Amino acid sequence: MNAEKRLQDLGLVLPSPPLAVANYVPAVRTGHLLVVSGQLPFGLDGAISGDHKGKLGRDVFNEAGQEAARLCALNVLAQVRAALGSLNDVKRCVRIGGYVNSSPGFTAISAVVNGASDLMVAVFGDAGRHARLAVGVAELPLDAAVEVEAMFEVK
Amino acid sequence: MNAEKRLQDLGLVLPSPPLAVANYVPAVRTGHLLVVSGQLPFGLDGAISGDHKGKLGRDVFNEAGQEAARLCALNVLAQVRAALGSLNDVKRCVRIGGYVNSSPGFTAISAVVNGASDLMVAVFGDAGRHARLAVGVAELPLDAAVEVEAMFEVK
Amino acid sequence: MNAEKRLQDLGLVLPSPPLAVANYVPAVRTGHLLVVSGQLPFGLDGAISGDHKGKLGRDVFNEAGQEAARLCALNVLAQVRAALGSLNDVKRCVRIGGYVNSSPGFTAISAVVNGASDLMVAVFGDAGRHARLAVGVAELPLDAAVEVEAMFEVK
Repeated sequence: MNAEKRLQDLGLVLPSPPLAVANYVPAVRTGHLLVVSGQLPFGLDGAISGDHKGKLGRDVFNEAGQEAARLCALNVLAQVRAALGSLNDVKRCVRIGGYVNSSPGFTAISAVVNGASDLMVAVFGDAGRHARLAVGVAELPLDAAVEVEAMFEVK
Repeated sequence: MNAEKRLQDLGLVLPSPPLAVANYVPAVRTGHLLVVSGQLPFGLDGAISGDHKGKLGRDVFNEAGQEAARLCALNVLAQVRAALGSLNDVKRCVRIGGYVNSSPGFTAISAVVNGASDLMVAVFGDAGRHARLAVGVAELPLDAAVEVEAMFEVK
Repeated sequence: MNAEKRLQDLGLVLPSPPLAVANYVPAVRTGHLLVVSGQLPFGLDGAISGDHKGKLGRDVFNEAGQEAARLCALNVLAQVRAALGSLNDVKRCVRIGGYVNSSPGFTAISAVVNGASDLMVAVFGDAGRHARLAVGVAELPLDAAVEVEAMFEVK
């Protein structure tokens, strides 16, 4: 598996890994696990687009929601590369937690989080298949539409 | 500990382990940890009963909520057996996360999640006692009343 | 690192570690990981103050919210000491999950959870810097304003 090459073949560019703005860090390694902080859908310009802010079912609709989840996952990968030096040091994506900013009655939560899951498999192949939590939350930091955290097994 | 025998003695039948319907998997093993995806309260017929859909405190009331959490936990066990071959390969239930679909003002979240916790101890005895997160969420996939994820230490 | 001495130097007293009131336990060790159950903002008197109940942005405002998160973190530490015998057996705070009881439109979730993150760094120094999830939830047990769970690497 050469995840860096796959990323290149897919024409994907990782955003600059957002800095943690308080007394936490973007990722912690313990043994063979790398735990990545919840990431928001920052774009390549370092900002969250208006299309990816607010609640699913009210302000953000399915395709934009999936794209927001995909951007969260790209930020997760940016943090993994920053922590390890290369995505090629990932052995497996173990778990992602997908938290969807949901308006009352919005239950298509799994479809939104697929934006993140699909990216993991596009980049890591079968090693990208992960256990997953997908829930609808009341609010998210910066009014983001989606937040994604992750855990990886690393070399 | 013979968890398979306990299950039998309790007269419990595990549902067919639900397939992951997207680019994720029901469970991932890393080292001695098994991480199980969030499970919904599917019954033996593979469907979520109307009694286990909607919000606690509005559509679903305490006993049905506990039963929904218990069903989520049975689905967790079905995934564990599918992943490991036997529940007897579990050394310990390490953590469960219980996410309760809560209407405004519903705070009896712990009582609902006890439906899952009690099942773990019924099946695994003291090795079923786990660390726990219990929170009330805004929405859940398929309008389920409860979702439960879990982490186990395995042989 | 002498976390017990730091705690003393900071004049901090840990609350009595709350007992789990059902079939779960406050903390589980697996290998070199200690997983701590979600903790509520109990004070030294064993109760949740009215100031730390209800929703951020409606009943609880920023400073009281941060203080609630800090109290959750003190309860996490109380559980760590009860589990390990001493905070000095902590090698690293790996992750905290901060769940903020958020009223509609309350998005200053990160600022609230900083109350917990800051305490970890005050007590453990750089080893207290953790990966973090911060989300706004619909409801919490006992109508608490904040709930914090944690994972540590231990000796």
